[in-house]
Amino acid sequence: MTFDLRSLERPIVQAPMAGGPSTPALAAAVGQAGGLGFLAAGYKTPEAVADDIAQLRMASAAPFGVNLFVASTEKAAPEVVAAYAQTLTPDAERHGVTLGDPRFDDDAYAAKLQLVIREHVPVVSFTFGCPAPETVTALHDHDIAVWVTVTSPEEAALARDAGADALVAQSTEAGGHRAYFSDTGEHEEYGLLVLLRLLHTEPSPPVVATGGLMDGAGIAAAHVAGASAVQLGSAFLLAPEAGTSPPHRARVAAPGMTRLTRAFSGRTARGIVNRFMDEHDADAPSAYPQVHHLTSPLRAAARDTGDGDAINLWAGQGHARAQARPAAEIVRTLAADAARTLADATAGAARR
Amino acid sequence: MTFDLRSLERPIVQAPMAGGPSTPALAAAVGQAGGLGFLAAGYKTPEAVADDIAQLRMASAAPFGVNLFVASTEKAAPEVVAAYAQTLTPDAERHGVTLGDPRFDDDAYAAKLQLVIREHVPVVSFTFGCPAPETVTALHDHDIAVWVTVTSPEEAALARDAGADALVAQSTEAGGHRAYFSDTGEHEEYGLLVLLRLLHTEPSPPVVATGGLMDGAGIAAAHVAGASAVQLGSAFLLAPEAGTSPPHRARVAAPGMTRLTRAFSGRTARGIVNRFMDEHDADAPSAYPQVHHLTSPLRAAARDTGDGDAINLWAGQGHARAQARPAAEIVRTLAADAARTLADATAGAARR
Repeated sequence: MTFDLRSLERPIVQAPMAGGPSTPALAAAVGQAGGLGFLAAGYKTPEAVADDIAQLRMASAAPFGVNLFVASTEKAAPEVVAAYAQTLTPDAERHGVTLGDPRFDDDAYAAKLQLVIREHVPVVSFTFGCPAPETVTALHDHDIAVWVTVTSPEEAALARDAGADALVAQSTEAGGHRAYFSDTGEHEEYGLLVLLRLLHTEPSPPVVATGGLMDGAGIAAAHVAGASAVQLGSAFLLAPEAGTSPPHRARVAAPGMTRLTRAFSGRTARGIVNRFMDEHDADAPSAYPQVHHLTSPLRAAARDTGDGDAINLWAGQGHARAQARPAAEIVRTLAADAARTLADATAGAARR
Repeated sequence: MTFDLRSLERPIVQAPMAGGPSTPALAAAVGQAGGLGFLAAGYKTPEAVADDIAQLRMASAAPFGVNLFVASTEKAAPEVVAAYAQTLTPDAERHGVTLGDPRFDDDAYAAKLQLVIREHVPVVSFTFGCPAPETVTALHDHDIAVWVTVTSPEEAALARDAGADALVAQSTEAGGHRAYFSDTGEHEEYGLLVLLRLLHTEPSPPVVATGGLMDGAGIAAAHVAGASAVQLGSAFLLAPEAGTSPPHRARVAAPGMTRLTRAFSGRTARGIVNRFMDEHDADAPSAYPQVHHLTSPLRAAARDTGDGDAINLWAGQGHARAQARPAAEIVRTLAADAARTLADATAGAARR
């Protein structure tokens, strides 16, 4: 039977955070606490994702999800990428590395689809686009729930038409990559509350709210605004089970402004402002994943030396409220706080 | 006795919308329906504001508020303004007008303060800054409640320290001018939910949530997230009592992307994207109110000819859901919907 998110004991989903933070240990801890853990397939080889799934299944019998990046058909011109590479040369020299090969690839989309089907992963969520109808059908044929990440009412309509079992409503407060189906043109940067209300239609698959949620009251508010569950990323970044790098952890825990940037990957994402962003935001083109590959050696070197000024510090607007606690504790505490907030609000309204 | 917003029969505040939409009739209708109506003193002479207050008092005995723009001390260089004026010349010619005198003024701040004190206005809210401690004291000495519009935790801390009786938490979804205390430098564009949670401290004056709220469920969610009341602007733009111009009404009622812009006033504001924004956003400096005065004849001419492509179409991200209904109906319906949403959410949680 296809997984129904309304069956979760605690309606808290751990956001797939590609590039390090998402680990099998984190997904296992969240799942065992009654939430839904997620693996992030992005950037990894299908073999590495298969390993993650195996590890997660050894650690936990709870349902879980795997997130896939939908292959893009928008390919930036090589000269655009080359021009940006030029501006990164001083950074590469500073870190003693050569810039990466700015290749265009599809993140092994087809092979990863085969993998999640073969593995009967309970939930597969998609980012950067809507899966094709035949993909949705293939997943449904194997009782796999299909979630599509959307950032606007227009994308939500496409996802509903494609047969999505749930919509992950990602608002501008969210850390990491914006899930826009296309990263060209202009996007309305919807806040979470207004996005949830604009997505509200009847009938609709259930909605998972994501963007800036860090505590029980925020979660309760998202439910009241129509979400069936919430997806939290930054709230788990400091958990010991997360693979967040030490310089990333240090910045997440401190106050610090966030901003949208294409400087690290060539695709719009929200991160904590640092030197690299300040120096390269203005020049960064829409050229994903070429720019991701270009900056990869640079970011790896900076991570190794603990240099938080040259790595992508993906984080949502509420990041400074992240707690360095075991993931299961976070799930249980936030779910309990959300329930209490709702009860208090109703009691308050009754007293009026 | 100083007005306490928790005494409102319906905790819905009508946002002060300077430049036309706010009228005594709108404030009266909202107040008589149990909400709190607001007059917008911005751009008007003290005499015109006095007239508005007199008209409102003839129409309604309910408490009301007046919003003041805090005088700015940031004065853009004349050459910056002149350079922008140069780019507007083709627009002026097209509309057959001469650009306005780009004067720097303080919107008669001191005279308006004297006016609201003399008139014993129940609530005075501030935008673009925090009133000085002696101003707050003077207002309190006359039993006038002081509300300060804030866009970040840092501004909220300043407002609390200044003795504000309520904080109006304005998030990025909101239409019209951003209330930043300073329009230079960079601002985190907080979504409403995360802003409400970041403002949550104990003790704190009550918080009024504003930004993208258009329906009962959104209002209920804001309450759950910690707001004592909500402030709605776009939700009233189509009410017959509002002074919204016909071309503005037409665009608010239709789907259309919004964006932050300084093109019309020299200060960041959210409006529906139109030709003027597309053509001038990139050049527009931070130079308020000089740019406001510069574009004023141009906007007046465009309003007269019904040209929605050359006027400031201030609106929040949820504008397309605005309803062309009497303001009192809007207040009563949204308050009832909010109460029902909260009851339903609690019942749903209890069934889990």
